[in-house]
Amino acid sequence: MKPVNVGLCGLGTVGSGTFNVFNRNIDDICRRAGRPIRITTVAAKSLNPSCDTSSVTVTDDVFKVTRDPEVDVVVELIGGYGIAKDLVLDAIANGKHVVTANKALIAVHGNEIFKAAEEKGVTVAYEAAVAGGIPIIKALREGLVANQVNWLAGIINGTGNFILTEMRDKGRDFADVLKEAQELGYAEADPTFDVEGIDAAHKLTILASIAFGIPLQFEKAYTEGISKITPADVSYAEELGYRIKHLGVTRKTEKGIELRVHPTLIPEKRLIANVNGVLNAVLVEGDAVGPTMYYGPGAGDEATGSSVIADIVDVAREVETEHAVPHLGFADRTTDLPVLDIEDVVTGYYLRIDCKDEVGVMAKVAQVMSEGEINIEAIIQKEPAEGEKDVPLILLTQPVLEKNMNDAIVKLEALDAVTNPVTRIRMEALDG
Amino acid sequence: MKPVNVGLCGLGTVGSGTFNVFNRNIDDICRRAGRPIRITTVAAKSLNPSCDTSSVTVTDDVFKVTRDPEVDVVVELIGGYGIAKDLVLDAIANGKHVVTANKALIAVHGNEIFKAAEEKGVTVAYEAAVAGGIPIIKALREGLVANQVNWLAGIINGTGNFILTEMRDKGRDFADVLKEAQELGYAEADPTFDVEGIDAAHKLTILASIAFGIPLQFEKAYTEGISKITPADVSYAEELGYRIKHLGVTRKTEKGIELRVHPTLIPEKRLIANVNGVLNAVLVEGDAVGPTMYYGPGAGDEATGSSVIADIVDVAREVETEHAVPHLGFADRTTDLPVLDIEDVVTGYYLRIDCKDEVGVMAKVAQVMSEGEINIEAIIQKEPAEGEKDVPLILLTQPVLEKNMNDAIVKLEALDAVTNPVTRIRMEALDG
Repeated sequence: MKPVNVGLCGLGTVGSGTFNVFNRNIDDICRRAGRPIRITTVAAKSLNPSCDTSSVTVTDDVFKVTRDPEVDVVVELIGGYGIAKDLVLDAIANGKHVVTANKALIAVHGNEIFKAAEEKGVTVAYEAAVAGGIPIIKALREGLVANQVNWLAGIINGTGNFILTEMRDKGRDFADVLKEAQELGYAEADPTFDVEGIDAAHKLTILASIAFGIPLQFEKAYTEGISKITPADVSYAEELGYRIKHLGVTRKTEKGIELRVHPTLIPEKRLIANVNGVLNAVLVEGDAVGPTMYYGPGAGDEATGSSVIADIVDVAREVETEHAVPHLGFADRTTDLPVLDIEDVVTGYYLRIDCKDEVGVMAKVAQVMSEGEINIEAIIQKEPAEGEKDVPLILLTQPVLEKNMNDAIVKLEALDAVTNPVTRIRMEALDG
Repeated sequence: MKPVNVGLCGLGTVGSGTFNVFNRNIDDICRRAGRPIRITTVAAKSLNPSCDTSSVTVTDDVFKVTRDPEVDVVVELIGGYGIAKDLVLDAIANGKHVVTANKALIAVHGNEIFKAAEEKGVTVAYEAAVAGGIPIIKALREGLVANQVNWLAGIINGTGNFILTEMRDKGRDFADVLKEAQELGYAEADPTFDVEGIDAAHKLTILASIAFGIPLQFEKAYTEGISKITPADVSYAEELGYRIKHLGVTRKTEKGIELRVHPTLIPEKRLIANVNGVLNAVLVEGDAVGPTMYYGPGAGDEATGSSVIADIVDVAREVETEHAVPHLGFADRTTDLPVLDIEDVVTGYYLRIDCKDEVGVMAKVAQVMSEGEINIEAIIQKEPAEGEKDVPLILLTQPVLEKNMNDAIVKLEALDAVTNPVTRIRMEALDG
């Protein structure tokens, strides 16, 4: 059988991980693929000392790879929207299959890229774009093909999960743990993408499209970061039987698709509440299968390379045949449902209301909740901390429309007895 | 595009689940498949009132399905080794692709069946044979294709996990919970297959072959059941920071492949230690990806049907093309390593030694361990229980060759001070 030739663009973290795993395990990879596959060409600005590129063609021009008549599959591991987008579109135009780990590119420009690929009859594979080494795209698009997905929820940013895990385990505060995460290399110098939920929203956008058969709509995703979570909130949540996780949630409702990333209280007995450190997990609820969960490393050179190579093998099986799985899981759209505005989403809430330590406060708070038709499910009221005047009042509520909760919070904050902005964290039962 | 025609043999639990999910979600399934698929024929001894078969051909002769020239894919959901094997081989001989949920058939006769299929150029798909609705075969065979698998460990029998979960949560004993499991329909009237580990060994045999590229060797699997686990053992393990799970473990070592199902102590902080009730999970350690875990329902009509339909869609993509994933993951064998005898396996151990309450017992026990070069990692010695004369002495050991442990246990049981056979439960750290 004629070998499938792969051109690799980028030798950074994921590029070098892919190159080294591929060459280390090449014999078994070809036995599993059932055909010979080889990396013939590498494009990189500079060589990576961890990669022995002596037996491949090396260039600093990615377009030499995309236009190489011997190359069957182009692998884009450069990242970002600039050269990465140009090279993916050029590879498609030249009739190459493409493999990419670029979540931002797929979430933002995927509709255009997949259209170009379908017109040209080639495949763009992107398993490594979501949850690193976990084969979640394959599970969702192929393994759960029989199901109407009701909802899915994921811990899909390792940096954020590391920070929240440390805050819980050691009572440390956000800024302190972030600094350590940066020193350990888990967080970037500018941590915005990770801690504000943008990276997670890229991944969630992709998962939502596959789950529900809707176009990629990253611009409609709601994102809220974890930088305002305090050790006190983590500890109150714990006392009530919950863990706080930075969760991506997407759900199909009659009115539309929920698409949101925010800190979330999850019952501690759910398996996903026990996913700690930099690890990722995605919980999917299908109408036939019920709940299934996929867990593993969401980043890392070789873990992400593992998914890149899985895509290379899948795509290699398509060279000279035609059996591709539709890019976003469906050969055509399944619903015209819109993505919901966050105000139209219904969830339970954790509220921390810092109050003056005086008579009648609880009655006033309860009055506001009652006017908003918000049912209270649990309350903790503490003594003032040593040297503090305020008392924190913790409420858990039944599910309520976010719009109503926003109105209630405005009223709460207008009370004389309430001394600070109200802290509000959404809750998910994740029970089907 | 010409529709792919499916003939379904068997309308029991999994057959009816498959039939009903397929018809409920047929529009989306075909959109995901990118081609029309339909169930045209059903073979069943008797009709199932939950299935509306009015628009399909119904027969009581499975060979009418395997020989129907219009049928492209034959689905075997009858179970057992008799008619199921005959119909699978007849379908292959007639050039049909086959989908089956029959773990016993694949584990015991899979080598013969896959050989026949490969000679005929057809595919036999069996996702539903392992861990019900969890797409573990796909994850291992395709998603982790880049990896050398080091080991995998699974909770792959829901009945056993339900029993152990209840024993832990409520301090109940084995026989009591088994009776309830039988009333709930989680356990068969004859529970041997489940509680003695035979069902789990069928599934583990299949996973081991895919992980390591070895032939199916069910007859070499070591199985030990959970019927001798006592509430006291569960509670001592808990005190030491462990949970007892009925685990299937397969691992590649220099000398051979470990293939074993037995009760196992797992550190409670591992995610898999927190998989409870009838749910299943498989933890896979690959050299590139590290640890990944797959979790969900291991049985049930629609959950198992979910996997059967995923296979139907995969196989439908192959009709008129050729891109099949090798049956056991590899196009040819990757190793001639033998399956190890359980005596050649190295693990840590939990030992419960019931002793007379007298001076010098601990010294004698320690002497036996020392002679066997067995390092003790933790000890609990309790007061005798109210009205009891014996004291249980609990030891955790460092990893040691099973043969040496067996010798030590013989010596321990020969001590005058030891009053009962020693209880021995293997331990797995599951940390890479």
